[in-house]
Amino acid sequence: MTKIRILGIDPGLARTGYGVVDSDGTRLRAVGYGCIETPAHTPLPRRLQQVYDEVREVIARHRPDTVAVEQLFFYRNTTTAFAVGQARGVAILAAVQAGLDLAEYTPMQVKQAVSGYGKADKSQVQEMVRLLLQLPARPSPDDTADALAVAIAHAHAGPFRRLAEGAGGEGTVRA
Amino acid sequence: MTKIRILGIDPGLARTGYGVVDSDGTRLRAVGYGCIETPAHTPLPRRLQQVYDEVREVIARHRPDTVAVEQLFFYRNTTTAFAVGQARGVAILAAVQAGLDLAEYTPMQVKQAVSGYGKADKSQVQEMVRLLLQLPARPSPDDTADALAVAIAHAHAGPFRRLAEGAGGEGTVRA
Repeated sequence: MTKIRILGIDPGLARTGYGVVDSDGTRLRAVGYGCIETPAHTPLPRRLQQVYDEVREVIARHRPDTVAVEQLFFYRNTTTAFAVGQARGVAILAAVQAGLDLAEYTPMQVKQAVSGYGKADKSQVQEMVRLLLQLPARPSPDDTADALAVAIAHAHAGPFRRLAEGAGGEGTVRA
Repeated sequence: MTKIRILGIDPGLARTGYGVVDSDGTRLRAVGYGCIETPAHTPLPRRLQQVYDEVREVIARHRPDTVAVEQLFFYRNTTTAFAVGQARGVAILAAVQAGLDLAEYTPMQVKQAVSGYGKADKSQVQEMVRLLLQLPARPSPDDTADALAVAIAHAHAGPFRRLAEGAGGEGTVRA
């Protein structure tokens, strides 16, 4: 199986986690990860521009083959959904402008892919991310761990998705 | 008073209304307006890219001095907030990349500016927009009328905002 490099993104206005993972079908390797933090009390346009610019930088630096983000359907409240939405919009724009496909996974799909258990808690997911990627410590903040987790979910789901597409099925991989 | 050209935007994933209004302090003139519609069942990244590209085109065509958007605090539900947020993020990014300031107005500020009455209904706001801009018909869809309305709100609020900034006060005009 060919190697694939996946950029996982966990977008947010204050913190956007990212994690770049190489998968050769059997092994996973963390290429780079981190968190884009925008200062509070900064004007919204500047925060959005920072998220966009830094996602572009990550793409330019690591040249991923594809991008994966979580597909959340429920938020604590509309304020959170609105803020996350704005950051997610510019992060996805940066990806599509770089010609990358986007795959979306539900939180349950991410948890199942990482821990084999759809109801794992945050701490378990972080520890599994650490083990799967052989990292010296749990990646932090949560946003970084979540970004690596969604990249891992794509690494595990990849072949099946490509199969589904090849068979003319409805994939969620997006051009 | 110097003339100012304002681009009002009412962002949404399916429909993003825009309206460009010139104000010389006493008179208002509609320079151009319309609605960016993205087809449903189109992949999210393409819809976001279309909103971004077309907002950029509107800016390039009309060269506004500033951009105004509604600042909504309440949404029917988190799904709507999330979808609007993503479109709003890329629309604001297009504006800030063009070097434009962004001003945000609450729905009540917009209604008061347009109709002198904070609780005017949609139909009243549309009719006032038509009258203030001397349009042959009510602009439609609602998104276009709302975009023109927020541009009018900025035209009316402009001098006071600039005054507040000059005096070192807290303005909501954003760089």
